[in-house]
Amino acid sequence: MAKFMDVHHSMKGITEEQLREAHDADLAIQDEEQVSFEQAWADPESGLVYCLSEAPSAEAVQRVHERAGHRADEVHAVPLTVS
Amino acid sequence: MAKFMDVHHSMKGITEEQLREAHDADLAIQDEEQVSFEQAWADPESGLVYCLSEAPSAEAVQRVHERAGHRADEVHAVPLTVS
Repeated sequence: MAKFMDVHHSMKGITEEQLREAHDADLAIQDEEQVSFEQAWADPESGLVYCLSEAPSAEAVQRVHERAGHRADEVHAVPLTVS
Repeated sequence: MAKFMDVHHSMKGITEEQLREAHDADLAIQDEEQVSFEQAWADPESGLVYCLSEAPSAEAVQRVHERAGHRADEVHAVPLTVS
């Protein structure tokens, strides 16, 4: 398993409720792809949404997002983390 | 205070130690701008680094990064979060 950051570019105007609904749609099916979405951050002004996940591959992350109806524009492995 | 996600595009080949050093350089001076860097994630292959912070403004985030020697290519407010 590895960490991934994926990015959506076209979510301009997204509300807190819409972000919650999109995240819940991912959570509802993520087990089928062994993906665990951990957090998501959205900027309604630019339309950018960042999602942090733990997953077996970038393709698995994308499959969950696609099936939930919101394909990511970028999916990047982020093997290095600091906090 | 608000949450910000900033992005660096040109960190190809970054190592865990370099990410730690860059993060520590931010932490060392962040109080002067009332910024709190919380986490950072790096993809050495694409050169992308994402930093999550709490700060009074995007400009304050950028000032810390600039003074620490690694200007961000993008700084976005991310007022919406889910987990």
